[in-house]
Amino acid sequence: MQRDGVRLNLPAFRFWSHHSCRLFAMSGRASGVYEPWVLWVVLFLALISFGAEAKVHFHKWKVNYQTWAPDCVQVNIISINGQYPGPNIRAREGDTIVVQLENLIPTENVVIHWHGIRQIGTPWNDGTASISQCAIYSGETYVYKFVVDRPGTYFYHGHYGLQRSAGFYGSLIVDAARKEPFTYDGELSIVLNDWWHKSTYDQALGLTSNPFVWVGEPQSLLIEGRGRYDCSATNNSCNATNTQCSPHVLQVQPGRTYRLHIASVTSLSALNFVIQGHRMTVVEADGHYVDPVEVDNLDVYSGESYSVLITANQDPSQNYWAGVNVRGRQPKTPTGLAILNYLPNPSTKFPSAPSPTSPLWNDYAYSKALAKKFVALKGQEELPPLQSNRRLILLNTQNKINGYIKWAINNISLLPPPTPYLVAMKYKIKGAFNANRPPDIYNPRDYNITIPPQNPNAVEGSSVYVFTLNSVVDVILQNANTLTANNSEIHPWHLHGHDFWILGYGDGVFDPAKDPPKYNTVNPPLRNTVAVFPYGWTAIRFKADNPGVWAFHCHVEAHFFMGMGVVFAEGIEKVGRLPNAAMGCGLTRNKIHIHE
Amino acid sequence: MQRDGVRLNLPAFRFWSHHSCRLFAMSGRASGVYEPWVLWVVLFLALISFGAEAKVHFHKWKVNYQTWAPDCVQVNIISINGQYPGPNIRAREGDTIVVQLENLIPTENVVIHWHGIRQIGTPWNDGTASISQCAIYSGETYVYKFVVDRPGTYFYHGHYGLQRSAGFYGSLIVDAARKEPFTYDGELSIVLNDWWHKSTYDQALGLTSNPFVWVGEPQSLLIEGRGRYDCSATNNSCNATNTQCSPHVLQVQPGRTYRLHIASVTSLSALNFVIQGHRMTVVEADGHYVDPVEVDNLDVYSGESYSVLITANQDPSQNYWAGVNVRGRQPKTPTGLAILNYLPNPSTKFPSAPSPTSPLWNDYAYSKALAKKFVALKGQEELPPLQSNRRLILLNTQNKINGYIKWAINNISLLPPPTPYLVAMKYKIKGAFNANRPPDIYNPRDYNITIPPQNPNAVEGSSVYVFTLNSVVDVILQNANTLTANNSEIHPWHLHGHDFWILGYGDGVFDPAKDPPKYNTVNPPLRNTVAVFPYGWTAIRFKADNPGVWAFHCHVEAHFFMGMGVVFAEGIEKVGRLPNAAMGCGLTRNKIHIHE
Repeated sequence: MQRDGVRLNLPAFRFWSHHSCRLFAMSGRASGVYEPWVLWVVLFLALISFGAEAKVHFHKWKVNYQTWAPDCVQVNIISINGQYPGPNIRAREGDTIVVQLENLIPTENVVIHWHGIRQIGTPWNDGTASISQCAIYSGETYVYKFVVDRPGTYFYHGHYGLQRSAGFYGSLIVDAARKEPFTYDGELSIVLNDWWHKSTYDQALGLTSNPFVWVGEPQSLLIEGRGRYDCSATNNSCNATNTQCSPHVLQVQPGRTYRLHIASVTSLSALNFVIQGHRMTVVEADGHYVDPVEVDNLDVYSGESYSVLITANQDPSQNYWAGVNVRGRQPKTPTGLAILNYLPNPSTKFPSAPSPTSPLWNDYAYSKALAKKFVALKGQEELPPLQSNRRLILLNTQNKINGYIKWAINNISLLPPPTPYLVAMKYKIKGAFNANRPPDIYNPRDYNITIPPQNPNAVEGSSVYVFTLNSVVDVILQNANTLTANNSEIHPWHLHGHDFWILGYGDGVFDPAKDPPKYNTVNPPLRNTVAVFPYGWTAIRFKADNPGVWAFHCHVEAHFFMGMGVVFAEGIEKVGRLPNAAMGCGLTRNKIHIHE
Repeated sequence: MQRDGVRLNLPAFRFWSHHSCRLFAMSGRASGVYEPWVLWVVLFLALISFGAEAKVHFHKWKVNYQTWAPDCVQVNIISINGQYPGPNIRAREGDTIVVQLENLIPTENVVIHWHGIRQIGTPWNDGTASISQCAIYSGETYVYKFVVDRPGTYFYHGHYGLQRSAGFYGSLIVDAARKEPFTYDGELSIVLNDWWHKSTYDQALGLTSNPFVWVGEPQSLLIEGRGRYDCSATNNSCNATNTQCSPHVLQVQPGRTYRLHIASVTSLSALNFVIQGHRMTVVEADGHYVDPVEVDNLDVYSGESYSVLITANQDPSQNYWAGVNVRGRQPKTPTGLAILNYLPNPSTKFPSAPSPTSPLWNDYAYSKALAKKFVALKGQEELPPLQSNRRLILLNTQNKINGYIKWAINNISLLPPPTPYLVAMKYKIKGAFNANRPPDIYNPRDYNITIPPQNPNAVEGSSVYVFTLNSVVDVILQNANTLTANNSEIHPWHLHGHDFWILGYGDGVFDPAKDPPKYNTVNPPLRNTVAVFPYGWTAIRFKADNPGVWAFHCHVEAHFFMGMGVVFAEGIEKVGRLPNAAMGCGLTRNKIHIHE
């Protein structure tokens, strides 16, 4: 039973869930006001039931900008119901989440992506503007409804422009219905973020300007929405009464073991999480059990989530720092800090030790070795098919288009079109996007990944990779040098609508002959996000078994904004009737028929 | 032939204009890309014609944010085709304007209102979000097409959120097809504005916050988009190479007479315009000829436009300042300056005289007397019907709703609904707005206009004043004290879709018995904007003869944003079929019908 939601018992929920979903969606958004009778139907059906398992969690959210001081410096953030970060969603596997979202931002639209939730049967509620739905108009209401079908650590966030960077995110944790392969005494949860003082409007303008204006490294790193910028003794904004930026407190009883949920929504930074004096045992990653890995510190890339077990086995008279540091980019940002508070010590007792440190930012060998340690827990997770039906090799490059800096995949920089792909494909609306087949591979003979592109020009595009339903797809992410000599960045790639097996990582150029035999098909971890390391490649495999249209993109928000993504589709003919509420933009307007 | 447009000769244009308009609108917006064949049809029809009068002016505009330094301080503005202010539109009466607007702003929608153009037959192109159309989605294209049926000084601007204040405006001047009642040797044009350094996002957030955060008086006053803030000798941003903030230059030949077009798009300020050493003869106001009035300086309220004749009859060895000063609010903003440049003097030669001064800011007697001087030029303008069919008395008050500061009319603060009124009324979409009849009058016995409201609570509403087509309507705007003791502000009220006759101004409470006999029905000026002075009233009359739905509101952008407006409608059954491109938001989504 979560704090800000309503949990309803509901019998045989699945029998009417699809119909109900359309009712919600159509009435909710189109009127701008939620139709009361729909809610009464839900309540009635709920009240006549007894003891069924699936629950409905109803949330009513109002989204708007608001002043906030996450790191003691006041800025404007996107809040939900006046909260930052947004409300936590907590449910059990098989439950249904209903979020009635009212967009109160003047002139600006929004969507919310439910990161890690596959949206089986509800691809229109994936919350990706231009792909799964029309963004929710300023002043209007849309109802997201979906089933959380698998336990794990998830989150949600804006997926439009740079709205995630404006603070539009929160936690979504799904409890297991069956016994889990580990035990603990209590649970804790944090979402990690990086933070700038420059508005995301200014940042977006800089990214789309020529000359390019880059915001630079973050001012702060936030743990559960809190950090401290320039908190010298003379800075009044850091005083004890400023609760918005007082460090997040993780309360523990000495001797007990806790499951700590960790997720990262950073805009840019790869992070390393460390708790002073405490080892962590990683047991879950992106909603899948992994063979337990004990670590002193944990790399967390944007879009990833983990559960770690920690035991409060240190001197109970002290509190301890939990901290995050930047990896993969020369850090100019101080450690983000939270307090591991051993009860009954006061939470206001700051640890006397210095901020915890992480491995050297450019110790990629460390990060690669750590990444390879995560494998599926035996007997708990599905194993991959041994063969794939199709292989994409996607070269990630930084490029220029008409002098503007962009990112491109196989030389195409994604420019999402006004008409959502899902609607356009489902209803065969011609001209909504580029119908040509995008390139499955690049030619390694024509491209040297170790130097800046010889010809940096790319093209903007909107074409789609269409897969046969239930086919098996391999994707090789191939990293390269950026426009700057001797520079290649970590990119965390996130796939919507699916999990994938990580088959392997490698340095240099992927070799189609020599590398696949080295794939791990025995116990590869299932994930929804994976890093490709500088000058290296990462191989993943997934089943194209979820009818819909799905983004696959770098989770660095600025990179996706600059075109670093592709669009996947499968089984469109199996997609149910789309709710009118998801339409109204682009060419879907041509489907408005009014008989006078 | 304007600089950035294409002017086409077109025979018998009106025969196909309605059909063509729908073609443009439907194909243009829905695809996000302009259908080339439509343009070819237009070109073909144009090329086969000879010597016809009506022309089509085609403009292709890309709208986006951009850094700019209008007063030498760099901020983000909304630009059109990279220009600020937006491109000038110039046409002849009877011509057709086509603007293909592509919205390149990420996440944010836009509209453009063509201020002073009545949109006869094209009410869906009035460019008022929530009233005439769905705002143009981020990333999409909409085609505005309308006839400029009357000569005069007009302009255009954003009409959504605070986008006008972000610099989204430009000039629209329509030349007379027949001989005008005055002559001149050349023409000049300026648009006046007030300017803040705080972003309009921050301003909007402040206006909708509790406690209320007011941006305060403007940092600068701009003439044709240029001003100078803090240009002390040490400020490098004011150097000669910063052309964005070098004063606007009005070039004249000694001895010649010029028609100077003046319009004001200020967000807040009433202005007084003055040219050092030069008298002005006012000959046109809001597109109507007035009996010439010679003045030393001219009050210009936001939303008003004028033509004045000036003769370059001063010492030709000098240049002269043209300036604007704030009226009606205690000024904290320096005079905004342009240069009247007597050729062949260099335009860079700054006048040696100090900035020109205006009457005392609170000399309301001066302003009222000036306002009353403007009467219609005999024989040139239509006279009002002697009787009206309906009279509204609209009390303008500052209020609180749930602690938030709002403005209200007869205690209703306008909250525009997600579904545009025009669409909802034309297609009888139930539930789109409050169908109750709003109050025609307030009860003067219950309200003391000389003190802050005893009960400041108002309600939000969306109801419509519906008029019988071709009926005659009187509106009395009744001003009152704000929430602050001894304070009442000037409000410039603007009517869309119509001009109105100003029948009279008065102090104190309008008296329905004693005041109407004093109305000027002999030669009242026709206007689209009129001021109501502090603690006073203004009476106007208009014919409700333009089928459509029309905003009538205070032209102070923040005031309209806070609810200071009403919605008028008439003859909806006569409105032509609405273009799909104007729909897609709110309940219009329920009209999307897809046959799989």
